[in-house]
Amino acid sequence: MRVPLLTSDFIDRAELVYGDRIGVIDEPDQPARSLGSLTYRELARRGRAIQAGLDELGIGVGDRVAIVSHNSARLLELLYAVPSSGRILVPVNFRLQAEEVAYIAEHSGARVLLVDPELETSLSAISAEHKFLLGEESDDALLRFEAQPRPWSEPDEDATATLNYTSGTTARPKGVQLTHRNIWINSVTFAMHMQMSDRDVYLHTLPQFHCNGWGLLYSAAGVGATNVIIRKIDGAEILRRVEKHGVTFAAGAPAVWNMALDAAAQLDGEIPGHGRTRIVVAGAPPPSRTIARVETELGWEFNQIYGLTETTPLLTVNRPRAEYDELAVEDKATLLSRAGVPGLGTRAKISDSGEILVRGNVVMGGYWDNPDATDEAIQDGWFHTGDGGTVDEGGYVTISDRKKDVIITGGENVSSIEVEDAVFSHPSVAEVAVIGVPDDRWGEKVTALVVLADGQTATEDEIIAHVKSKLAGYKTPKAVEFREDIPRTSTGKIQKFKLRQEFWEAGQRQVN
Amino acid sequence: MRVPLLTSDFIDRAELVYGDRIGVIDEPDQPARSLGSLTYRELARRGRAIQAGLDELGIGVGDRVAIVSHNSARLLELLYAVPSSGRILVPVNFRLQAEEVAYIAEHSGARVLLVDPELETSLSAISAEHKFLLGEESDDALLRFEAQPRPWSEPDEDATATLNYTSGTTARPKGVQLTHRNIWINSVTFAMHMQMSDRDVYLHTLPQFHCNGWGLLYSAAGVGATNVIIRKIDGAEILRRVEKHGVTFAAGAPAVWNMALDAAAQLDGEIPGHGRTRIVVAGAPPPSRTIARVETELGWEFNQIYGLTETTPLLTVNRPRAEYDELAVEDKATLLSRAGVPGLGTRAKISDSGEILVRGNVVMGGYWDNPDATDEAIQDGWFHTGDGGTVDEGGYVTISDRKKDVIITGGENVSSIEVEDAVFSHPSVAEVAVIGVPDDRWGEKVTALVVLADGQTATEDEIIAHVKSKLAGYKTPKAVEFREDIPRTSTGKIQKFKLRQEFWEAGQRQVN
Repeated sequence: MRVPLLTSDFIDRAELVYGDRIGVIDEPDQPARSLGSLTYRELARRGRAIQAGLDELGIGVGDRVAIVSHNSARLLELLYAVPSSGRILVPVNFRLQAEEVAYIAEHSGARVLLVDPELETSLSAISAEHKFLLGEESDDALLRFEAQPRPWSEPDEDATATLNYTSGTTARPKGVQLTHRNIWINSVTFAMHMQMSDRDVYLHTLPQFHCNGWGLLYSAAGVGATNVIIRKIDGAEILRRVEKHGVTFAAGAPAVWNMALDAAAQLDGEIPGHGRTRIVVAGAPPPSRTIARVETELGWEFNQIYGLTETTPLLTVNRPRAEYDELAVEDKATLLSRAGVPGLGTRAKISDSGEILVRGNVVMGGYWDNPDATDEAIQDGWFHTGDGGTVDEGGYVTISDRKKDVIITGGENVSSIEVEDAVFSHPSVAEVAVIGVPDDRWGEKVTALVVLADGQTATEDEIIAHVKSKLAGYKTPKAVEFREDIPRTSTGKIQKFKLRQEFWEAGQRQVN
Repeated sequence: MRVPLLTSDFIDRAELVYGDRIGVIDEPDQPARSLGSLTYRELARRGRAIQAGLDELGIGVGDRVAIVSHNSARLLELLYAVPSSGRILVPVNFRLQAEEVAYIAEHSGARVLLVDPELETSLSAISAEHKFLLGEESDDALLRFEAQPRPWSEPDEDATATLNYTSGTTARPKGVQLTHRNIWINSVTFAMHMQMSDRDVYLHTLPQFHCNGWGLLYSAAGVGATNVIIRKIDGAEILRRVEKHGVTFAAGAPAVWNMALDAAAQLDGEIPGHGRTRIVVAGAPPPSRTIARVETELGWEFNQIYGLTETTPLLTVNRPRAEYDELAVEDKATLLSRAGVPGLGTRAKISDSGEILVRGNVVMGGYWDNPDATDEAIQDGWFHTGDGGTVDEGGYVTISDRKKDVIITGGENVSSIEVEDAVFSHPSVAEVAVIGVPDDRWGEKVTALVVLADGQTATEDEIIAHVKSKLAGYKTPKAVEFREDIPRTSTGKIQKFKLRQEFWEAGQRQVN
């Protein structure tokens, strides 16, 4: 018997088996907007009410529902409900500028747009057929609690469940179509490789829009773990939540854990979660010194994964093996600084040019309305990650260079070309190259190298202010350096390799 | 991207990631036949050599390879290799009589037949195009170590991987087609729900032929756990293996754990695996007293599952929830005596007549060469388990009555109709009904109620000896009772319900 692999499997099981259990504890900092604590039964009931509301609004199967929001219980329930209702959810990065959000809403053809009240002003100019502020307004508009709610939709497992826009090498973000099957396989293998269970309490230190919180919120529902929402990332607050809710599991970019480490250094007494909490890190491999500090100073188990939005994201996982238990912490940290080994059913290999190619059911269905980009990314059954790397004999992938012009800063992908466009729009700029420069806090720091036009002047602050008016804050260069020229290849392509070289030790590894 | 879900995913990952780790420790009791300890790399290498050997023999994609064997490393590697090579493995119950094995070999159209040397004599009359004794003979015939072995085959995920013959309500066993997708979903969700990891050491207390060891051997390879073979089930030997190999995980019928409990009662000193080993029980729900004894006397974690060969088998799982930790052991045992909650993606419901119906990707592709039986078993997208039961508000399934005339004794399915046929073939028997009677050791004990023909005589021993000459020992009645008549319905159907009633307390639950 074949039954489609669907996102509804996760929330269905949570409702049936863990109906009385707290499914989510919402952010308490804004009591008026918080949903408080919801059981999985309530989450599922609200989810089906959203399905009924979309039915009533006339939003058809396969139509897009976009949401721009910080982490919240409402975003969580939409991630459960919208794909399970047969529509496509478009979770948008809340850090993007209005113009960028407008592009995504337009490109995805979103018929419904839901906006975090905190972003109301900045996104006021964006229109949609149905636009609601997240909270009471969206509840009133979308939730229809019917006496006999219909069961979840049953789309094909290859139908698109979410559209996640990601910055690539081009100026405009691309819409990554993640299918129900993608999400199912990702979430189940992730839960399996991390031994998630109903004894876990999962703290959302990862932006939920980010490839759907890496799919871990589906894993949590599938095994009956409780979700704890955290809206603004702050080291001390993370430690407080870990203590208050008995958090056992969290995931996020290296920058998050640096904040937790800093906060822990200020803390008197025992570290919450010591010997119990395990964390999963990705976005950029942190220095092995950070890994060692997580294990010794926090007493949390360090796990690394490697993945992309286009891969749902789980490609490889580096989990402490039994053999590591006997090692000195530095040696263990070195082993854990690799990207890891492929998850079940995923294959990785290195192309002749040194690029990591992958194959498996976590690879996206394609780029939305962009067959050319899809064909370029997936060739002969292998997805081209754009990252350079190596695979050792034990199957461990190590990332050595990012092939695409993408900077990963604080766990966010930034297209260097997009930033270059914005810098170049300043009238004094003649030439620009934007690169990532190693940074303990951000992993990579967006840095612009600028050649000024003849007779023109501009300061670092002026250029930063100019870009900030156009792009999200995290995309704005943190530093601008002025140069006499920018090295180019004979065909005129900027030699970013050379530019990065001066910032990177030994020049061996050009991503952080 | 869609990539087929295949059995080769498991052994591939074990080879790549855990190549140096011991994949299997073979039974040591027969040194001449034992493969000793093999790493996953060696297991994978031998598996591809089997693929090459089958290629050379001209065994085509989709052809059947049958094997009749006690648990062994060679049976394990065939379970990995044959489906991954694109052929269909037919693992046959080693307890069956020659005539029954012959039927299965014939019905499945097996081109290759592999026989445990211990069964050489009893199965000598069965012929096949290629017949080999398992061991050196089968290694010589099948293993072709090539310099450049071809990669595993890539059949469709809906292709049949194994054919597992099971006794149903009819006299002849039916061939259950388990697809690659069935096995993949079963093994991954099983591993997820049991939190299996590369720190596990898995003892094969379950017959490997039995729906492929419940698929747990694929789970083990997928996460890098070590398999420990045990050939003959003996309580003291189980405890010794748990101690010697640091076993953390095992599965089997209730009878197995009764043996371990008996052996533990004789043991001086600490129980091996105390506080570490978890066991999974199915086949028949054991009395809650047994569950409590496993937790207190062995200190092993008790888990129950419910499933059938037709469901790969994982339907429901009952794993101790965090909430149970605070309960008295008797209360916990009562909760654990339920069949459990559906695994991810599986749905269960109760039909109007009280039968448990299930739906999910673990349900078989169909019965081999038997479309009528398939259509009868799967109706409107639901598989009819033949078991009566209830589902409570928390989603927990409890089995209350077996609808089909199947007796489960010592974890084996016995068709009562098949046994009735054999009893009836005794010339003195006029009428017979075979039922399961509750038994602490066997779960249910095969019991024949016999009406003798006018003027004929026969003793209990004579009838048992007569059946034993025709059927496997476990199918032979353990008791024969003589009656004046057998109650029948108006249409002439035996009222087994009434017959069972006198043997079962309170008449509430008619399966053990």
